[in-house]
Amino acid sequence: MSRLVTGVRFFSTAASTMLADATSAARSAGQPSSFQVFRDVPQLRQLRRQLLKNDRSVGFVPTMGALHGGHLSLIREAARENTDIFISIFVNPTQFGVNEDLSSYPRTWDADVEKLEKMNEELAKAAASSGSTTGRISALFAPTSKVMYPISPPSSEVDGDGSFVTITPISKKLEGASRPVFFRGVATVCMKLFNAVTPDRVYFGQKDVQQTVIIKRMVQDFLIDTEVRIVGTARGADGLAMSSRNVYLGDRRRAVGLTIYEALRDADEAYRSGKTSRADILGAARSVTDRVLAEQQALSPSERALFEVDYISLADPDTLDELDVVDRSKGAVLSAALRMAPLEETKPGEQCGLGDGKVPVRLIDNLILPPQH
Amino acid sequence: MSRLVTGVRFFSTAASTMLADATSAARSAGQPSSFQVFRDVPQLRQLRRQLLKNDRSVGFVPTMGALHGGHLSLIREAARENTDIFISIFVNPTQFGVNEDLSSYPRTWDADVEKLEKMNEELAKAAASSGSTTGRISALFAPTSKVMYPISPPSSEVDGDGSFVTITPISKKLEGASRPVFFRGVATVCMKLFNAVTPDRVYFGQKDVQQTVIIKRMVQDFLIDTEVRIVGTARGADGLAMSSRNVYLGDRRRAVGLTIYEALRDADEAYRSGKTSRADILGAARSVTDRVLAEQQALSPSERALFEVDYISLADPDTLDELDVVDRSKGAVLSAALRMAPLEETKPGEQCGLGDGKVPVRLIDNLILPPQH
Repeated sequence: MSRLVTGVRFFSTAASTMLADATSAARSAGQPSSFQVFRDVPQLRQLRRQLLKNDRSVGFVPTMGALHGGHLSLIREAARENTDIFISIFVNPTQFGVNEDLSSYPRTWDADVEKLEKMNEELAKAAASSGSTTGRISALFAPTSKVMYPISPPSSEVDGDGSFVTITPISKKLEGASRPVFFRGVATVCMKLFNAVTPDRVYFGQKDVQQTVIIKRMVQDFLIDTEVRIVGTARGADGLAMSSRNVYLGDRRRAVGLTIYEALRDADEAYRSGKTSRADILGAARSVTDRVLAEQQALSPSERALFEVDYISLADPDTLDELDVVDRSKGAVLSAALRMAPLEETKPGEQCGLGDGKVPVRLIDNLILPPQH
Repeated sequence: MSRLVTGVRFFSTAASTMLADATSAARSAGQPSSFQVFRDVPQLRQLRRQLLKNDRSVGFVPTMGALHGGHLSLIREAARENTDIFISIFVNPTQFGVNEDLSSYPRTWDADVEKLEKMNEELAKAAASSGSTTGRISALFAPTSKVMYPISPPSSEVDGDGSFVTITPISKKLEGASRPVFFRGVATVCMKLFNAVTPDRVYFGQKDVQQTVIIKRMVQDFLIDTEVRIVGTARGADGLAMSSRNVYLGDRRRAVGLTIYEALRDADEAYRSGKTSRADILGAARSVTDRVLAEQQALSPSERALFEVDYISLADPDTLDELDVVDRSKGAVLSAALRMAPLEETKPGEQCGLGDGKVPVRLIDNLILPPQH
């Protein structure tokens, strides 16, 4: 977490001056001038309370940093609906299992701050040209682990002690089956972040569909005073869902990784053409993954990218229970996870991504099969 | 829960009129005139937001009804520190185990409303005579189970599914050892209530000491924007800690039940006289319970009241870990639980309490051994 403090000015102004426009302040690399950075909760709360009293609204976009186009699309959506946008950057240890990739998760503070500054410029221009009341990023909340876990170091053990929010049985399905502490960690940190920010609206990407179902459930069950907004999955030009972990893919694995999206699209097509049975819909997806895997296995180690299908799921949109037949009045969630293996052999000059193609990458993606009336 | 609606007027006025003084309204049994009753969250939130914008403060006293002097002392304390007091009455099913006394828990809506009305009269008089700015009860939140558990019926099974807050390992100790779902239920419902009310301060009685430790931990760990106030245990003239369950005791079991307080006081005396070892402090308590139990066993079934000691504990004030020696700079929590057995035989005309002395009653009590510098 030490990179978080690099070159950043942390504001400690009183609430009364916090709303002053800071865009005229000196600007240099890593020092945001158009929003404030908070590392602890009390001053964030002062700003929040001030905004509330001035009838301004706060849209909140929680992130783990390594910002990409998906995050930016959440921010644009938040700007349409709120006067002020709060972003958080916190790489949450409790959602990583003991053997998962916490230590290798990308941390890119300076680039993240720069992207947020550019986003504020974009939002200001859009507001000026349209004459509309587009919101802007007012606060970046980048807490320390001690702020988020004040008492005891958080446990990543399945049976570990601590203060947790658990949402079951949804959290045990799909991603939860292979990552048993993941959604406990997500729900717990989101509860803390929501309590720190008390946003009017929170923004999550459709790409993490199980997360969206769990957060909606948490907000409803715990009577949290916020609206949950789900924003469509942002995709690269090739169609791959944007993810902070994509930087580890490189060209070869990215091209093969696209199989996940192709498989889901073929299954979606089967549904749209009238199929409702699990066998028909998931069979369409499986035939894509089987074909591509066979093609790759036939190539030499320096040409191929191997993968395993973790799951392909056809599930109820509210409970994520697996479906044998889709109820057309309700629709379904079609989702999948692939594990891209490390490259076996690389070629000279090949663009293998961060970590030289040695980092295994788990890809997830989903499509919503809409109700058809 | 059907008794909750008996004879009560539920307000549905707009927020703009919610702050109007209702004391001049027609008053009849069970119809509060000095505060509003809310059965759902949205209108409660409107009032809360209005108060926030008017710089008024809210002290919150969550209860399960069956109000007694202990609750009233919490309300008096809340009135000293806040302009407005919100009370909740909700008998929370998830903190009762499958074999516990949910169905027999006393429900006394009309009497509760009357007590709150009288409390507002008392507070108004106190404010008038002192010229001070004593707060008053503004809202009684009496949600339905469906409001508090909107999705699925809450589980009371230890491994049951649902949306829960768990605070471990504290929740497994003492009361949690014999009531494994209790503090999961308490933490979960308090998180919901706190989110519904968003109080500036919350008030809990010292009597439920483990609850106070867990709520303080929850507020700290989940970054909840409220202050936790602990108010000293209210006791009857005989010294017995007030509890909603005391109505089941009757005269004979009440007199013998006082043993719990006598045992704790002797242990406290040992600490004050310089003892710090577990053997010395708890030995003082044990000698009281052993003596009284032997005396009772020597009496005939129509004269005696038998009990079992569930635990007598000497524990760290923050973690509730059992202590072999008290650190004088930190002090300790001395707590106990007794199970009063049903009366074996009753005598004609004997005052045996609600349920004719047949309801087993579990008594808890505690004393804080203060730091000594």
